[in-house]
Amino acid sequence: MIREVGLRDGLQSIQTILPTERKKEWIRAAYDAGLRELEVGSFVPARLLPQLADTAEIVAFARTFPGLFVSVLVPNLRGAEDAIASGADLMIVPLSASHAHSLANLRKTPDEVVADVGRIRAARDAAGSKTVIEGGVGTAFGCTIQGEVKIAEVLRLMQALFDAGADRVCLADTVGYADPLMVLDLFERARAVAGDKLWCGHFHDTRGLGLANVFAALQTGVTRFDACLTGIGGCPHAPGASGNVASEDLAYMLESMGIQTGVDIPALLTLREKLAAWLAGEIMHGTLWKAGLPRTFEPTQVTAAAREATWNTK
Amino acid sequence: MIREVGLRDGLQSIQTILPTERKKEWIRAAYDAGLRELEVGSFVPARLLPQLADTAEIVAFARTFPGLFVSVLVPNLRGAEDAIASGADLMIVPLSASHAHSLANLRKTPDEVVADVGRIRAARDAAGSKTVIEGGVGTAFGCTIQGEVKIAEVLRLMQALFDAGADRVCLADTVGYADPLMVLDLFERARAVAGDKLWCGHFHDTRGLGLANVFAALQTGVTRFDACLTGIGGCPHAPGASGNVASEDLAYMLESMGIQTGVDIPALLTLREKLAAWLAGEIMHGTLWKAGLPRTFEPTQVTAAAREATWNTK
Repeated sequence: MIREVGLRDGLQSIQTILPTERKKEWIRAAYDAGLRELEVGSFVPARLLPQLADTAEIVAFARTFPGLFVSVLVPNLRGAEDAIASGADLMIVPLSASHAHSLANLRKTPDEVVADVGRIRAARDAAGSKTVIEGGVGTAFGCTIQGEVKIAEVLRLMQALFDAGADRVCLADTVGYADPLMVLDLFERARAVAGDKLWCGHFHDTRGLGLANVFAALQTGVTRFDACLTGIGGCPHAPGASGNVASEDLAYMLESMGIQTGVDIPALLTLREKLAAWLAGEIMHGTLWKAGLPRTFEPTQVTAAAREATWNTK
Repeated sequence: MIREVGLRDGLQSIQTILPTERKKEWIRAAYDAGLRELEVGSFVPARLLPQLADTAEIVAFARTFPGLFVSVLVPNLRGAEDAIASGADLMIVPLSASHAHSLANLRKTPDEVVADVGRIRAARDAAGSKTVIEGGVGTAFGCTIQGEVKIAEVLRLMQALFDAGADRVCLADTVGYADPLMVLDLFERARAVAGDKLWCGHFHDTRGLGLANVFAALQTGVTRFDACLTGIGGCPHAPGASGNVASEDLAYMLESMGIQTGVDIPALLTLREKLAAWLAGEIMHGTLWKAGLPRTFEPTQVTAAAREATWNTK
């Protein structure tokens, strides 16, 4: 249900360079708190994102945890080759539905990224690898550079990603422009095209609507969401964008509604406290940690079988 | 759509005593920003809430603005008599559905408050006053003292308020225990009992779900919400409760969804800036002000007739 993306989306957006050993501690604690899908890094040149230069080592470490689904971001074929070699379970290829954002962020048009996905699929298959390919369609609700992004263009690119060989897609409100009615509209249309291959919603809380948007997406049948402990994260090429939905708040909302996440929220809040210390000086978000859980809160009962079903990501 | 309650719910929960002239400036700026319903104070003894000791003067001032609907809170018959004398358009009588919270907060059982409402109705009618009586059912989703509050009890008390003479009710998540599914459930049932007399939802953002809960309530047909600029506010007798939904974020969500609020959001953000300065040192909330409006944001078109319809609160 919750893919924790803090080790990638969070860390790439802040100044602090978290030491590799801290990242490992983060992964271990997240695993112990019940999270079973983590985006742990990005295979990009270290000069561009020194924060993520240790991605190969982190993937290898994460792979030692039984049942942990390990995701990475890859911006191109070169990164995908590294991801395949690393044995990551999933690689996310980011695409911006906004042409202007795509050129600014990736120096490619959206259709050039689609072509990349074709090459990545060929490389994956040639290697006999099982690494899942997920297309991440960003700026799906609008863009700080271009402004409006048309729904038809989002749907066209989503289909193009499938045609090129993507196994799944994720729709992302990269800059926090979505509102719940926009989410209902786009996610319903996208589900009509992609069915369960519309795998995940990625919402930013830039203007406070992150969890309302998650609730809207849930109503369309999407049940998986990216989130980031302490709500850090954003996009360096989208001015004003800041803050993924906070994992701890998302877990609370889902569990409060009786939707099983497998997450031990008090353990997650303990990890949040550690992160807040490690990342001292960075702007952090999230709300639950200030008030704690309600007296009436009852986590869903997690059985081993239920957890397996929840985290059946393959 | 939005009842700004900062001058009452907000100010009663913080340390700062805002001078009367500042409150007047707040009212003027809120009016200029398009807000047409304000809860401006509370008729309680000044020794209990010195922050609100100038309520009579503030009501008189607020009444000079054409079309502004002026609300106050009254804890008992004595307060209601003051409210009637002040000429306020509406008086909210708070009731806690949680027996324990009611005793701690009001030193009365919920049914004793219902009896008060009967006396208040008699006094209102005897005075030939048109002041609307709204029952505010607090802790409707649970309570920090008592824990669970049963839906049946909330519905029973709501009906009892009507039977005693209340014109409307508001349901309040005083301590931030609601989640969107709870809201859908309770508000649907309450609408079945009360129809359009279920006037308003009052959500706290204590655990980050405030706007998601508003979106859920909207789906049940409720279209009016309490909110507070900068998201201050809470309940001194509900430990851990803090922060109404921020008016500026709520206005943004509604307008973004094409729901007309009549509010000029940039003007509201300017007022927010002033408040942040006046209340420096207090903990404030809200998200929109950090990022500003999206490039793609288009406020709904407000005509004079539409505004009148939107604010047809009588």
